[in-house]
Amino acid sequence: MADPRFFTVAGPFTLAQLAQIAEAEVAPGADANRVFDDVGPLQMAGPTHFSFLDNRAYVAAFEASQAGGCVVHPTLAGRAPAGMALLVSNDPYRAYARVATAFYPVPWPAPGMAPTAVVDATAKLGEGCRVDAGAVIGARAEIGRNAHVGANAVIGDGVVLGDDCVVGACASVSHAIIGNRVNLYPGVRIGQDGFGFAMGPRGHLKVPQLGRVIIEDDVEIGANTTIDRGAGPDTVIGAGSKIDNLVQIGHNVRLGRHCVIVAQVGISGSAVLGDVVAVGGQAGVAGHLTIGDGARIAAKTGLAKDVPAGAAYGGIPGRPMQEFLREMFTLARLVKKGRGEKEQE
Amino acid sequence: MADPRFFTVAGPFTLAQLAQIAEAEVAPGADANRVFDDVGPLQMAGPTHFSFLDNRAYVAAFEASQAGGCVVHPTLAGRAPAGMALLVSNDPYRAYARVATAFYPVPWPAPGMAPTAVVDATAKLGEGCRVDAGAVIGARAEIGRNAHVGANAVIGDGVVLGDDCVVGACASVSHAIIGNRVNLYPGVRIGQDGFGFAMGPRGHLKVPQLGRVIIEDDVEIGANTTIDRGAGPDTVIGAGSKIDNLVQIGHNVRLGRHCVIVAQVGISGSAVLGDVVAVGGQAGVAGHLTIGDGARIAAKTGLAKDVPAGAAYGGIPGRPMQEFLREMFTLARLVKKGRGEKEQE
Amino acid sequence: MADPRFFTVAGPFTLAQLAQIAEAEVAPGADANRVFDDVGPLQMAGPTHFSFLDNRAYVAAFEASQAGGCVVHPTLAGRAPAGMALLVSNDPYRAYARVATAFYPVPWPAPGMAPTAVVDATAKLGEGCRVDAGAVIGARAEIGRNAHVGANAVIGDGVVLGDDCVVGACASVSHAIIGNRVNLYPGVRIGQDGFGFAMGPRGHLKVPQLGRVIIEDDVEIGANTTIDRGAGPDTVIGAGSKIDNLVQIGHNVRLGRHCVIVAQVGISGSAVLGDVVAVGGQAGVAGHLTIGDGARIAAKTGLAKDVPAGAAYGGIPGRPMQEFLREMFTLARLVKKGRGEKEQE
Repeated sequence: MADPRFFTVAGPFTLAQLAQIAEAEVAPGADANRVFDDVGPLQMAGPTHFSFLDNRAYVAAFEASQAGGCVVHPTLAGRAPAGMALLVSNDPYRAYARVATAFYPVPWPAPGMAPTAVVDATAKLGEGCRVDAGAVIGARAEIGRNAHVGANAVIGDGVVLGDDCVVGACASVSHAIIGNRVNLYPGVRIGQDGFGFAMGPRGHLKVPQLGRVIIEDDVEIGANTTIDRGAGPDTVIGAGSKIDNLVQIGHNVRLGRHCVIVAQVGISGSAVLGDVVAVGGQAGVAGHLTIGDGARIAAKTGLAKDVPAGAAYGGIPGRPMQEFLREMFTLARLVKKGRGEKEQE
Repeated sequence: MADPRFFTVAGPFTLAQLAQIAEAEVAPGADANRVFDDVGPLQMAGPTHFSFLDNRAYVAAFEASQAGGCVVHPTLAGRAPAGMALLVSNDPYRAYARVATAFYPVPWPAPGMAPTAVVDATAKLGEGCRVDAGAVIGARAEIGRNAHVGANAVIGDGVVLGDDCVVGACASVSHAIIGNRVNLYPGVRIGQDGFGFAMGPRGHLKVPQLGRVIIEDDVEIGANTTIDRGAGPDTVIGAGSKIDNLVQIGHNVRLGRHCVIVAQVGISGSAVLGDVVAVGGQAGVAGHLTIGDGARIAAKTGLAKDVPAGAAYGGIPGRPMQEFLREMFTLARLVKKGRGEKEQE
Repeated sequence: MADPRFFTVAGPFTLAQLAQIAEAEVAPGADANRVFDDVGPLQMAGPTHFSFLDNRAYVAAFEASQAGGCVVHPTLAGRAPAGMALLVSNDPYRAYARVATAFYPVPWPAPGMAPTAVVDATAKLGEGCRVDAGAVIGARAEIGRNAHVGANAVIGDGVVLGDDCVVGACASVSHAIIGNRVNLYPGVRIGQDGFGFAMGPRGHLKVPQLGRVIIEDDVEIGANTTIDRGAGPDTVIGAGSKIDNLVQIGHNVRLGRHCVIVAQVGISGSAVLGDVVAVGGQAGVAGHLTIGDGARIAAKTGLAKDVPAGAAYGGIPGRPMQEFLREMFTLARLVKKGRGEKEQE
């Protein structure tokens, strides 16, 4: 169903093949030989398409769907419309991700160097790299195998990139050491000076920013996100972390592994996040804070204190989510009470 | 008055001509043959300049202005200084917009292709297009008439652009179908992958993003704003909508017609906004919400629930604006009362 | 200690030389002839490295540091480990900034014009300029001495830049008059149209944006920050002001001298900030407000009213910081009290 101008579909696959790809089970009674030629959302999929149900808000769409097949949680399998071929999985979204990737493998453009790309004579590129028109690669840069450097992207002197990385159109990278399978989206800014000044009423004196940005394997960094290099220590993004668009990460910040940072978050200098920390959209983290493993920071939070591992925080200033919600509830009740008293007067 | 290094003035125009351009009335007693050679703000305009009064905060500036002419609401015409030639209009700002556009028509650079632009042999461009230095246009892209593609902008394979579009310097567009008279400002990012991962503590699995970005006619998109393509459905920006700088729009979002989205707003995935919705600066909209036609969301709001048509919402979490203001008032009064009691002790 | 792939160290310097550079005093008993070959943070510095203590949170790191020398405030000098050579200063961070700049002077690349740079024949460049690959400089632009225009940056027609400016990779500048020693980071957007429309339910009419952006001397503007040109008046950034990444500055805004604007702040159109105003991360300033000299706006504040000189404001909507904190405290106490009563029932 995806627009063929932009996507090329693989397949078809039988239900049995999809079960294997999805690491899911064929539901009792489903025809394991049924053939699917595409994926699609519940509302748009047809009889030869495979879909998924992950969010309970979409159960009605599931019940009304024309999709020929679907992967669902076992507890919702009973809600399927007649004739739909089911796979069951305890993590149907992850199962769908595998199926969709089978139908639409990540496109990897043919290797080659565009005539208007400018690659310094001292730069080293591994085999299989593709460098698009107008891209610029600086002196002594080292780029692994199969990298794809997008049009008009700029990679500075001495930068190191691992294998299978993508640098999006118009992105810029300097002062950085980057692992394998890292995906920098268009317009990303990596490695510029951190915001370091000795402030004073008659002028702010710039402090040299002498660290780097270290990005570990399997990281994705969203469009127009900015990551400053360290002031002395490095700025570090842990393996597997996913960062959305328009995020700001200050100098010396350390992100653990598998963190999820939603769009427009700001993380101030020298903050340290543990592993698998999730930060909701537009939240802010003050400088020098420590956030424990597995903590969840709600969208819009303004964190000004450390957060223990596993805790959920929200509000401005950030406090335990329970406290924040209780305070909001108390305040709303107080207003209603006040108005009730007024009406009785 | 505009700097001739950057702007070229047209005209002059008589007051009668300006009345016709502005769709306004010449005020009683004003000389319809008076000639104006430029526009300017109240504080800076001189006797041959034409100005406007729209915001009551500037009535004092109006009374003291040296401007030779001005368009005002009929109720404020009486405050004009002696000798100022007036046009009256029920929408003086709109009237001024028309006058200013007559003096300063949108500049449209001469057609042509810069020698360092890189246009794929399979791309199609309509007549009258201009492609600036370093711009890159991909395979099978289709670009209408009179498009202006700015320096170092990148248009991906298969992208469709209508007539009279502008793509700003250093912008990038992929996986998108774009209407007529669309203006993408410098650094805009359109069509990259949405933030779609099947999350898990041992790693987040990427979900292929198989939709597009559809931008209807007469849309403007501000500098460094990011709009992700759909995950399966499309991301849609309705006709006439105006989006400011540094806005984030997630996958599958649908904006209606004539929406106004102020700077640094974030709209999470699959949210649906009706027509003529206004969202104030730095507000955030959670995923999968529905916002009705004509709703107004205050700056800084953190919306976590649906908003009915025509409603005004504010606060974090977002609630009806009246409730939010009442709660803020109650809280402030409570503090004052508490301090009063303390002082009496 | 800085990675030699990215940084080149100068020196070495004796303690006496560093005292002079730092405008600090050699502490009693320290060997003025001790030699230092680098700088480094307290936790990483070794016996030949020079460090600094500025933030009381790091006193323990100071006490345990292996650094051979350090600059500290006189009141903390007594906490130094045995054998550390001290400089004392009332502003140790500023002293360190001077020392670090002596070890790592700002790198200034060799003059020259990359073969793929595109400079209009009518543009004027001063001596010592460097223009990197793919950079584009428009007609009648005037660029001072020793400018460094980064790869794929775009400078529009008629733009004026002073001496010793840096324009980062992929930045774009139009409609702007810029002073000396201005540093525009990668991806900065200067001079595009402000967000000016005469709004209406059947469509928003664009208002021509006829002003410029004026940037005075010694300003830094962070990565992917956007500064719109004025609508009629100019947008002005005062001398010495420092602006972080992803900041939005609307049309007609006037910033005074030495302002500090932290990441992701948004300043709406026609707001006027005095001198030495500090605005914390993700704060927002509504349109047409006036903020007095030396005011401090906390991170995340949503300012909707003017702020007097010297005041500290916070909260949404913004109010004096003391009021905001008292309200948060009162609310938290109220919840605790409510729960206490419940538990007694």
